[in-house]
Amino acid sequence: MSEIVVRLTALRQMMREKGIAATIVPSTDPHASEYVADFWKERVWISGFTGSAGTVVITLDQAGLWTDSRYFLQAEQQLTGSGIALFKEGLASTPTMTAWLAEVLPPQSNVSINPLLFSVSAVENLRNELVNNELVLRAEYDFIGKLWINRPALPADRIYNYSVEFSGQATQDKIAVIRKEMQHKKVDRYLVTSLDEIAWLFNIRGNDVAYVPVAIAYAAIDAKTATLFINPQKVSLQVADMLSEEGVSVQPYNAVFEYVNHLHVGEKILLDKAKTNFALFQEIPAHCQVVAAQSPVFYLKSIKNEVELNGTREAMEKDGVALTRFFMWLEKEISSGNLSELSIDKRLRGFRAEQSLFKDESFGTIAGYKEHGAIVHYSASPESNAMLQPESFLLLDSGAQYLDGTTDITRTVALGALSDKQKQDFTLVLKGHIALAKAKFPIGTRGSQLDILARKALWDRGMNYGHGTGHGVGHFLSVHEGPQSIRMDENSTTLVPGMVLSNEPGLYRAGEYGIRTENLVTVVESESTEFGTFYQFETLTLCPIDVKAIDFSLLTADEKSWLNEYHQIVYKRLNPRLSPAENEWLRGHCKAI
Amino acid sequence: MSEIVVRLTALRQMMREKGIAATIVPSTDPHASEYVADFWKERVWISGFTGSAGTVVITLDQAGLWTDSRYFLQAEQQLTGSGIALFKEGLASTPTMTAWLAEVLPPQSNVSINPLLFSVSAVENLRNELVNNELVLRAEYDFIGKLWINRPALPADRIYNYSVEFSGQATQDKIAVIRKEMQHKKVDRYLVTSLDEIAWLFNIRGNDVAYVPVAIAYAAIDAKTATLFINPQKVSLQVADMLSEEGVSVQPYNAVFEYVNHLHVGEKILLDKAKTNFALFQEIPAHCQVVAAQSPVFYLKSIKNEVELNGTREAMEKDGVALTRFFMWLEKEISSGNLSELSIDKRLRGFRAEQSLFKDESFGTIAGYKEHGAIVHYSASPESNAMLQPESFLLLDSGAQYLDGTTDITRTVALGALSDKQKQDFTLVLKGHIALAKAKFPIGTRGSQLDILARKALWDRGMNYGHGTGHGVGHFLSVHEGPQSIRMDENSTTLVPGMVLSNEPGLYRAGEYGIRTENLVTVVESESTEFGTFYQFETLTLCPIDVKAIDFSLLTADEKSWLNEYHQIVYKRLNPRLSPAENEWLRGHCKAI
Repeated sequence: MSEIVVRLTALRQMMREKGIAATIVPSTDPHASEYVADFWKERVWISGFTGSAGTVVITLDQAGLWTDSRYFLQAEQQLTGSGIALFKEGLASTPTMTAWLAEVLPPQSNVSINPLLFSVSAVENLRNELVNNELVLRAEYDFIGKLWINRPALPADRIYNYSVEFSGQATQDKIAVIRKEMQHKKVDRYLVTSLDEIAWLFNIRGNDVAYVPVAIAYAAIDAKTATLFINPQKVSLQVADMLSEEGVSVQPYNAVFEYVNHLHVGEKILLDKAKTNFALFQEIPAHCQVVAAQSPVFYLKSIKNEVELNGTREAMEKDGVALTRFFMWLEKEISSGNLSELSIDKRLRGFRAEQSLFKDESFGTIAGYKEHGAIVHYSASPESNAMLQPESFLLLDSGAQYLDGTTDITRTVALGALSDKQKQDFTLVLKGHIALAKAKFPIGTRGSQLDILARKALWDRGMNYGHGTGHGVGHFLSVHEGPQSIRMDENSTTLVPGMVLSNEPGLYRAGEYGIRTENLVTVVESESTEFGTFYQFETLTLCPIDVKAIDFSLLTADEKSWLNEYHQIVYKRLNPRLSPAENEWLRGHCKAI
Repeated sequence: MSEIVVRLTALRQMMREKGIAATIVPSTDPHASEYVADFWKERVWISGFTGSAGTVVITLDQAGLWTDSRYFLQAEQQLTGSGIALFKEGLASTPTMTAWLAEVLPPQSNVSINPLLFSVSAVENLRNELVNNELVLRAEYDFIGKLWINRPALPADRIYNYSVEFSGQATQDKIAVIRKEMQHKKVDRYLVTSLDEIAWLFNIRGNDVAYVPVAIAYAAIDAKTATLFINPQKVSLQVADMLSEEGVSVQPYNAVFEYVNHLHVGEKILLDKAKTNFALFQEIPAHCQVVAAQSPVFYLKSIKNEVELNGTREAMEKDGVALTRFFMWLEKEISSGNLSELSIDKRLRGFRAEQSLFKDESFGTIAGYKEHGAIVHYSASPESNAMLQPESFLLLDSGAQYLDGTTDITRTVALGALSDKQKQDFTLVLKGHIALAKAKFPIGTRGSQLDILARKALWDRGMNYGHGTGHGVGHFLSVHEGPQSIRMDENSTTLVPGMVLSNEPGLYRAGEYGIRTENLVTVVESESTEFGTFYQFETLTLCPIDVKAIDFSLLTADEKSWLNEYHQIVYKRLNPRLSPAENEWLRGHCKAI
């Protein structure tokens, strides 16, 4: 028997003892994180599947993994011999987990989840779905926790103070704003459970998960106290003193359960159901009143202050230097035939690591050559790794965490001659990028109103792309943050100065190539007229766009002006940081069209 | 004592007897109609104010009328001596009705409304607002009904059958679709309470209110029966027979209360809370289950079939002929100095009335000369009536009800020389109109996503307009219908083929002039590609746009092409219906730029 089969057998034994017919094991952690520490990788442990996304469902005699197309190949290999079937998400023939459970289980069967790993909202939704299928949700057992011998420890790395030099606002000032918001909402206490929100609020950073510099913790604020629940070993005396000076006391990570369980009669507790795990939620005594709302830190964090914005501008210059060196190197080396998706990824990281205050990448690089570029969440593996040739498109989506800011950029470059269709596609995507970059809009505008600007050139020709146009970006925090976005879907958040977003239209031709052009932008004031106040975007990212791929006949004079002005800025801003040879290369790639 | 003071005194006496501290009298009828029959004009009767919008609140010693800017002057005049104060809506200093009540009444005072004149949603909202201000809503007394001697009768005009030749779908087929929808929603009965929905569903029309050819009625559908609740005097034997053949039986108008009151135990009743009056809602026994949802007819009605669309196209040709004659006449007569906003309105109606199947205007014409054009809902009165001079802009927003379709068009025309600023403004509005008219968009697109197309040319220069870009339009029914719209506000309704909407960007310079260019459009299929199915608009309205007002330097080649193609279509479609002289005039106004 393989190790996975042994684990499944043991799990099923425990399920039988508790009268459980099925267990759902997700990819998340107790903080609804995008990236999770090894300690929380229960789904990997029980299934052997190591992809970043996927949910396993185990019944007493069957099991399935639900994952998306980028992992179909990997999942099939890793599940071999486990007895776990692969359910391919996105195919019309694939049943949902709940539909499948309804089919294989008798009515009124118990379906178990670990309440730590599901948010309150997720539990409410799952419960509704199960009830509609005559199944019963049981959110009480931590089976994997009992079975997992030699489980990796929770990360014990020290957290560090994130200086006001970078954050621009002292912790006590942030807490004061929060307390005003709590008064306004008439709540006594506010539970903060999202790791990037806690890091922002207390000006701390950590190394607990990949790509996002956060530490595993909970937090609570009331009118007088602010508490950080974190493994005390992670807090040096120096950091503890700093926190204390800002009015923050430290308690052990798991003490939050006791803390919540002892809340006073009649207290009003503010929490975000989408981010608070169900186990913690259940500890709140019935004599308290839960006020469910979007976490106030979520919104405050999205509006960057001048220090954060200036740090981001600095980080963009460093990232631009690294990218200049990388693309110069790529241009020189491409004819060698020795470059691959994985090798260029490593090289790009090397160029970035040379820059001051570099800490990490902000997400796993997407280096998609030719048809791999059409797979939106492609991640090159040793098995898929393509060798680059001097032809067609390379799509490169990457980003970095510098202590002063987070970057995220996609460039699609011609590695050799392009067809007319390729140039047309590239140019239509660029037209959308420019239209959004140039947008001017009144106070109160939502991202969903602007989204069409990035798509119109494609829609006019019966084309489209299947992802959002813009996501929020954190400041030395998660490269994906809310609440702001620019998407076809409605999002009631209005865009306000200081928000940072991506501008990333694309076009994907399955089996051929993918194109995406992505810069980060921030919202700034434009002008006030008799018709009101208008905003516009400032483009933050500094890196040339490949003019070799452009069909100039498709660009208007205004669009050419935008591109020329953008390239002028790129050159002017990066020039002082480059060698003469690098400057010459950059000048050539930024010359006016 | 004036008549109004006598009425208020009598009302206050009744209020005292019932322990009521305030009564709210609205402008609506029991069917949430935009235009109401004289019988329902309780607010006019109690206040003397005859404007189309306004709500009166009467306490035991004070009274106020809340109305918007277009009625400030009229309201001040008509309220003189009544003791009713004018509260100007839209000014920051004006309290809301509820805030005012909270100020002038002691806590726990009773506030009365006539439950017939408020929808369930309106009652729920008002009750919440009052409760938050420590006031109590009483929705049980019909004071005005008891006081109003010599009240006008409810209209007793005969209804008429709206032939399938015009409606394109037999009543029994419509009912069959509804019954399927009811099965899908698992409801036993469906109450239809909106007058235009009832008219559409049963293929009947009437003359009960201004501008909208509907009859006052309720309706109910279950799996086997369909009932029209209407004054039997309004139903000729012939119409009753026709209804009967389609499976519809007729009961007296007020019998709906008894009908609802006798629903069976456990029945599920579908109704739309925004359109069902609270009095009727209260009659539903507690042993029934109310399923509140958007009325299915509301959505079905918005999607026009080919017969309705062809009728609309025919109506547009007739309207185009009337408009051609009108603008030709206007051009000739303007120098006389004898034309006024009111006189041209009358003349336009005359030209329309000459067209076959003309029934009525579809709303009160807005003829706004110079600064009057900047008042969005301007309605010329004998007091405001401006004489036209051969200079500046005339904004003319008008529409007609033909038996085969409803029209709504705005043209802004130069009556003489224009300034550069006027031409620029006109052209920016036109650019928005053209951008929306040319839009192509994938299945699933909502109006809020397209709205920016109509505004972008203005936003780019720090300008905007304060109204929606497009409203739905009924087919020989209300010129304003939902659920579709094109607005900045989110509306989850996606645009689908057959929906008819207006395309009416504008620009308003207070004290100077107003510009609006409005055509009606319908959604049609464009193409299906590997990226999905795309829709576009077909412009329905046929009337030249005033090229004298255009700054050609601001138009792109594509925009000029659109305008030339539009004018070609206008000429080609109207030409066969016009005299040689009219054709010559039209050819001149449709010539390519």
